Amino acid sequence: MTPERHAKDQPTPALFFDTANAYQRTEALKSAIELNLFTAIGEGKTTTKEIAQACQASERGTRILCDYLVIIGFLTKDKRSYGLTADSATFLDRRSPAYLGGTIEFLLTPRLIDNFKQLTAAVKKGGTVSSEEGMIEAENPAWVSFARAMAPMMAMPSQLIAKLVDPNANESLKILDIAAGHGLYGLAFAKRNPRAEVTAVDWANVLEVAKENAQAAGVSDRYQTIAGSAFDVEYGSGYDIVLLTNFLHHFDVKTCETLLRKVRASLADGGRAVTMEFVPNDDRVSPPQAAAFSMMMLGTTPSGDAYTFAELESMFSNAGFARSEMHELPPTIQRVIITYK
Amino acid sequence: MTPERHAKDQPTPALFFDTANAYQRTEALKSAIELNLFTAIGEGKTTTKEIAQACQASERGTRILCDYLVIIGFLTKDKRSYGLTADSATFLDRRSPAYLGGTIEFLLTPRLIDNFKQLTAAVKKGGTVSSEEGMIEAENPAWVSFARAMAPMMAMPSQLIAKLVDPNANESLKILDIAAGHGLYGLAFAKRNPRAEVTAVDWANVLEVAKENAQAAGVSDRYQTIAGSAFDVEYGSGYDIVLLTNFLHHFDVKTCETLLRKVRASLADGGRAVTMEFVPNDDRVSPPQAAAFSMMMLGTTPSGDAYTFAELESMFSNAGFARSEMHELPPTIQRVIITYK
Repeated sequence: MTPERHAKDQPTPALFFDTANAYQRTEALKSAIELNLFTAIGEGKTTTKEIAQACQASERGTRILCDYLVIIGFLTKDKRSYGLTADSATFLDRRSPAYLGGTIEFLLTPRLIDNFKQLTAAVKKGGTVSSEEGMIEAENPAWVSFARAMAPMMAMPSQLIAKLVDPNANESLKILDIAAGHGLYGLAFAKRNPRAEVTAVDWANVLEVAKENAQAAGVSDRYQTIAGSAFDVEYGSGYDIVLLTNFLHHFDVKTCETLLRKVRASLADGGRAVTMEFVPNDDRVSPPQAAAFSMMMLGTTPSGDAYTFAELESMFSNAGFARSEMHELPPTIQRVIITYK
Repeated sequence: MTPERHAKDQPTPALFFDTANAYQRTEALKSAIELNLFTAIGEGKTTTKEIAQACQASERGTRILCDYLVIIGFLTKDKRSYGLTADSATFLDRRSPAYLGGTIEFLLTPRLIDNFKQLTAAVKKGGTVSSEEGMIEAENPAWVSFARAMAPMMAMPSQLIAKLVDPNANESLKILDIAAGHGLYGLAFAKRNPRAEVTAVDWANVLEVAKENAQAAGVSDRYQTIAGSAFDVEYGSGYDIVLLTNFLHHFDVKTCETLLRKVRASLADGGRAVTMEFVPNDDRVSPPQAAAFSMMMLGTTPSGDAYTFAELESMFSNAGFARSEMHELPPTIQRVIITYK
């Protein structure tokens, strides 16, 4: 809904109005997922009447929701016929292997989004005000929900990372997966490389999900777990790869450096830390999705952030690592940093 | 935050992720207004430190909020210095006569936005589920809040309409302002044309605001009021102009036609109905802001809508009017329909 400019670029309240009402975009997307609307259209229901019938909804409500989804970019419209965009067909039709609709169970859980009802107070304080620790409280059940709901979003990036870091997939590899969650990042290595062994660290309640996924992948015999906080437990040593996926952003620089020293000590000579993160450019406002992730951290954590490559490089360097290199991970909105011990 | 396309236009989850998190845009804009952040920047505070100090907020929270406002289009950033866009300077700096920040008191009032927490049920039903009548309940105090908070947003369009409809501003004019609210649309005529007399219809609690504004404009001697529902009260007759600004969208076609018959009966020969509305094109998905207003009506009313010109023309015609003509009203996102008795 890019605001339209008029003659002479006169100021317009369009962006203000759009943004004040932006919460309706979230709710419209959520409703469409709840109603299986994208799947209905993918199955060939294209008129308001057909879609309404398939979604057991009113024609009036369906017409208004579909038009709104066209306006915000999720559907196409040709005369009276609606269609899926390429992105919607890939990510929002339940029949697609890359279906992401279930991630709203985490992304839109009240435990997460209610943090933003007090955003003004969070800006004043400089961190979440909902509780002392926000989303990073020990054993927060939201992370079990995360591990279950967000796994589909991680399938593609986990495969891309395994391919990037272990291209030949034929050498013996000892892998430590920090805050493994669903476990998919470690499991992607184990599935590609029969000589890869994975040790996953996370809270006990979350590890249950990782273990289920290891079993489903048929690699339980090469999958160990260590229950507890990544800051407290003993990792063991001699790892070739330590995975740090979507973890550092929850903490301040000092806390990250403390963790990274521990990570480095667990690596074998020639070992590598592999970090996946939302990494904004040095301007901190691009690329937009990665840069905007700072707002998620302001709202939900005491002092987390989306760190630039320079900041991450400095953390690793301060923790004793040799050098870091950044890789893009298209088509994801994240980046990978490979750091050598 | 337009999702970036990668090589070969591979599907990306960027739009999904942006939209799931779109509620954060609303909250960020609200926080910036509450903190007077735009005004601070307008006054020359341009670094994180200066802005944080002026807003009595943390530097970390201020930096993240400012970067986010750059990403979503409200601020500029040059190295470490933030600036206002032309739109933000016009509409969000409190020192600007066109300041709109206060409209969030209505646009983001829980009474309005809470409707969207049940959007899926509203799509199923085909109208608001929060109550029988939603926002159009008799004497709903939200309309007093509307009249106070939204008046600044109406200043410019009300002047544009008065100029369009009464360009010479020197002939005797009897004007009826239906659901007058803040009263600004009728008052714009009275202020320009010393021979214009205005009668405002609205609920008694809302008319208090209109009367205050008439007094402030110095035209109380040419300002009468009729308290009650526009569907119930007697209008009188012989009006040269009947104003219908942002009113028809709350009702279904049949209800609108009933009202328009009553409006037509109150007009003098040669009289005109002047309607200001969110008018989408026939495709119902453009222009985006006008078309998206249907979603607002789905969430908050039993059967309101953003009507196309063809639909409005048909309503007026069915109510006995001669002909309708549409005018753009740049730079606003609304359109004006002038209909001849």
